[in-house]
Amino acid sequence: MIEGQPEQESASEKETGRLEAFSDGVFAVAITLLVFNLKVPTLDAKDITQQFAKIFSQDQWIAYITFFISFATVLIMWVSHHSMFKLIHKSSSLFMFANGFLLLLVTIVPFTSQLLSENLIKSAGAAGAACAVYSGLFMIANIAYNLLWWSAAYRHHLLKSNVSQSLIKARTRSYLLGFPSYLIAMLLAFWNPFASIGICSVLWLFWAMASYERGPASRSQKVASVG
Amino acid sequence: MIEGQPEQESASEKETGRLEAFSDGVFAVAITLLVFNLKVPTLDAKDITQQFAKIFSQDQWIAYITFFISFATVLIMWVSHHSMFKLIHKSSSLFMFANGFLLLLVTIVPFTSQLLSENLIKSAGAAGAACAVYSGLFMIANIAYNLLWWSAAYRHHLLKSNVSQSLIKARTRSYLLGFPSYLIAMLLAFWNPFASIGICSVLWLFWAMASYERGPASRSQKVASVG
Amino acid sequence: MIEGQPEQESASEKETGRLEAFSDGVFAVAITLLVFNLKVPTLDAKDITQQFAKIFSQDQWIAYITFFISFATVLIMWVSHHSMFKLIHKSSSLFMFANGFLLLLVTIVPFTSQLLSENLIKSAGAAGAACAVYSGLFMIANIAYNLLWWSAAYRHHLLKSNVSQSLIKARTRSYLLGFPSYLIAMLLAFWNPFASIGICSVLWLFWAMASYERGPASRSQKVASVG
Amino acid sequence: MIEGQPEQESASEKETGRLEAFSDGVFAVAITLLVFNLKVPTLDAKDITQQFAKIFSQDQWIAYITFFISFATVLIMWVSHHSMFKLIHKSSSLFMFANGFLLLLVTIVPFTSQLLSENLIKSAGAAGAACAVYSGLFMIANIAYNLLWWSAAYRHHLLKSNVSQSLIKARTRSYLLGFPSYLIAMLLAFWNPFASIGICSVLWLFWAMASYERGPASRSQKVASVG
Repeated sequence: MIEGQPEQESASEKETGRLEAFSDGVFAVAITLLVFNLKVPTLDAKDITQQFAKIFSQDQWIAYITFFISFATVLIMWVSHHSMFKLIHKSSSLFMFANGFLLLLVTIVPFTSQLLSENLIKSAGAAGAACAVYSGLFMIANIAYNLLWWSAAYRHHLLKSNVSQSLIKARTRSYLLGFPSYLIAMLLAFWNPFASIGICSVLWLFWAMASYERGPASRSQKVASVG
Repeated sequence: MIEGQPEQESASEKETGRLEAFSDGVFAVAITLLVFNLKVPTLDAKDITQQFAKIFSQDQWIAYITFFISFATVLIMWVSHHSMFKLIHKSSSLFMFANGFLLLLVTIVPFTSQLLSENLIKSAGAAGAACAVYSGLFMIANIAYNLLWWSAAYRHHLLKSNVSQSLIKARTRSYLLGFPSYLIAMLLAFWNPFASIGICSVLWLFWAMASYERGPASRSQKVASVG
Repeated sequence: MIEGQPEQESASEKETGRLEAFSDGVFAVAITLLVFNLKVPTLDAKDITQQFAKIFSQDQWIAYITFFISFATVLIMWVSHHSMFKLIHKSSSLFMFANGFLLLLVTIVPFTSQLLSENLIKSAGAAGAACAVYSGLFMIANIAYNLLWWSAAYRHHLLKSNVSQSLIKARTRSYLLGFPSYLIAMLLAFWNPFASIGICSVLWLFWAMASYERGPASRSQKVASVG
Repeated sequence: MIEGQPEQESASEKETGRLEAFSDGVFAVAITLLVFNLKVPTLDAKDITQQFAKIFSQDQWIAYITFFISFATVLIMWVSHHSMFKLIHKSSSLFMFANGFLLLLVTIVPFTSQLLSENLIKSAGAAGAACAVYSGLFMIANIAYNLLWWSAAYRHHLLKSNVSQSLIKARTRSYLLGFPSYLIAMLLAFWNPFASIGICSVLWLFWAMASYERGPASRSQKVASVG
């Protein structure tokens, strides 16, 4: 109010705030829409044991597991998003569209997830194609994360002033590592679809740990020391 | 700004903020998707009285009641979530994934709700299996709440400094009590599905009161006195 | 931090904040799900004029108009909700469940809206029954608003200190007036379904104006003068 | 607290906050529902190459491209919304309903998007009609933006005090330019549907750049200089 400077700072704070709110909304809707992959089985058997056999049939299990893996992946994507935005204090045009590109991929997950669920045990060819598309989407999502991070971290453009160079390097390495991993997962789908899905699952476990081990929780002192 | 400490505190405040916003989004979408359990009846009768008979037929009533019970349960889960987060001021990696596990179960509710709605009056076996799965999900959700609470309250790890030991004990007891209750509801489903659903309904009524009676509303003085 | 009082005040501020965020989520999802009432027509005619005739056929128009009326109604409900919460600074157990009851009814709107859309021009009986249920839901929603307002305004329990008695009276009157209006709309459905829908539309126009004319926009001076 | 003035200011700040939160919710749900336009193909071919041919068949590509264009358009609409609200500090009754009108159109996008997706390569007539409706909706959305902007900028009514006259003029021009552009896109649909969609795509690219080039990012100094 006295000077233009503080007004401007609080305005840019709000800017990131709404970008996060919109992103949270898209993540939340996409993760909840995954439930439509679960089809309610028809319970027309005679006794209760057989009804359970229908609820937990092989087809249903495939749907449950696909649902679980997709849910976990979108959750990790959100955690990564959240973890990245904690280091960022303002927004730019490029950053906004890189974020939009990421959200585009997030909203596609329910589609690839259903594709996988319907084809995982159908035939070798169907499973392979579905797995390749499924892990291919996450490979592109990794590109989106790299683009988003680069648009924020290049020349320390949008980062908070107390983010250290070592933290930036560690994050950059972590995001770059994702690409060859998902590429391998995608290529592996043509030989062994289940191994491809396995790699995807291992990757988000790794990513979950990586983004947190290097996050503000354990390294906040280190981060603060530089800024 | 002068010291690293205040900066860090406001950052962790924001962290919980976004976790709550994302959770609110998932709860809000899941609770609204329950409406898809309601099927629009075909009104092809002759006079208006018969049309009403179709809108309020036995099948429709089952759907309406299931919708209501599921809505109330998700609402109580949100109230509990909200009530717990009021005592928490920061986040951790484990806490975040415990919360993600809880949200996973919340998004499944529309599925189990539809399973229940389609099978409650079909046959004894179908109703039993559907009820067991329905209350079984809430039993697992109770485990998620216990895990979430434990990850926050263990060694007063993530709690606000003014939360008293007596409040922690009361909450811990309340969450632990849920497990045997839902276990009984699940087992009862094999004998009497309606009794099982009845217990689920009574439980959320009890839980609603419990989480509030011991909440900040009535005991804020007591809470403040210790911290 | 120095005293317990400010800590407590900011906590209750946050409490209402999350209640609003959750409510906003439910309103936003419910209002967007209304689009599923619109069925994409099959365009298999010969020339472009006939294609337009299919996009704007009588059945499609019924769906478009029902969609518009339902959207406008949910929007007004949100505006009313927002307008009420601006006067409120803390929450209570009863208030929270009254709000939950209101949200329950909001999520049902896509259902009654589809019921109306499918039956408005089917037969006199079908249209009458659908209209009665449609306006009946809004009548119950009015009860929810009255309950919500009463739980907040009774003995000035949850209101901000600067809300004047005259504003409380005006609001109370406005909410109470809704009940007989919607009751008339519901009863009228048995004679003339279109008149019933017409009253619903007029009512939200009236309600929109009423809630704003008496709101903080025009009377903020008056409100501030008492508090 | 000491004076009525600051209390009133913070209240109006919150008012815009909730309007933005609700709008963000509607945008987020609408943009995520677009995924339902993507139909999962049946993979029943013999080898994996043919499966890919099914996943990336002509019909599927039409759906993917329509999905992408619609996603990008809704994203740009959100960016514009966000960009406009950064200049606004309070709300009015008219502004609120202009915003509601805009949200109405946003929720219709999944419908027109599906209409386009199903008819773009069906027949010349079907494609023309679908494209005209598709771009026609964006033309009406442009009217909504003009109305929203006018209700805020007229006599500097709802704008922040530091927004310059030159910025207001630039924005007004930018919004007004949209109308003839979308009108041309709509009319062109009758001759060449693909050209119509092309113009829509070019327009949001232009709009994206325009709303940012003239936004706070590059002109913040200029903006601050006047206020």
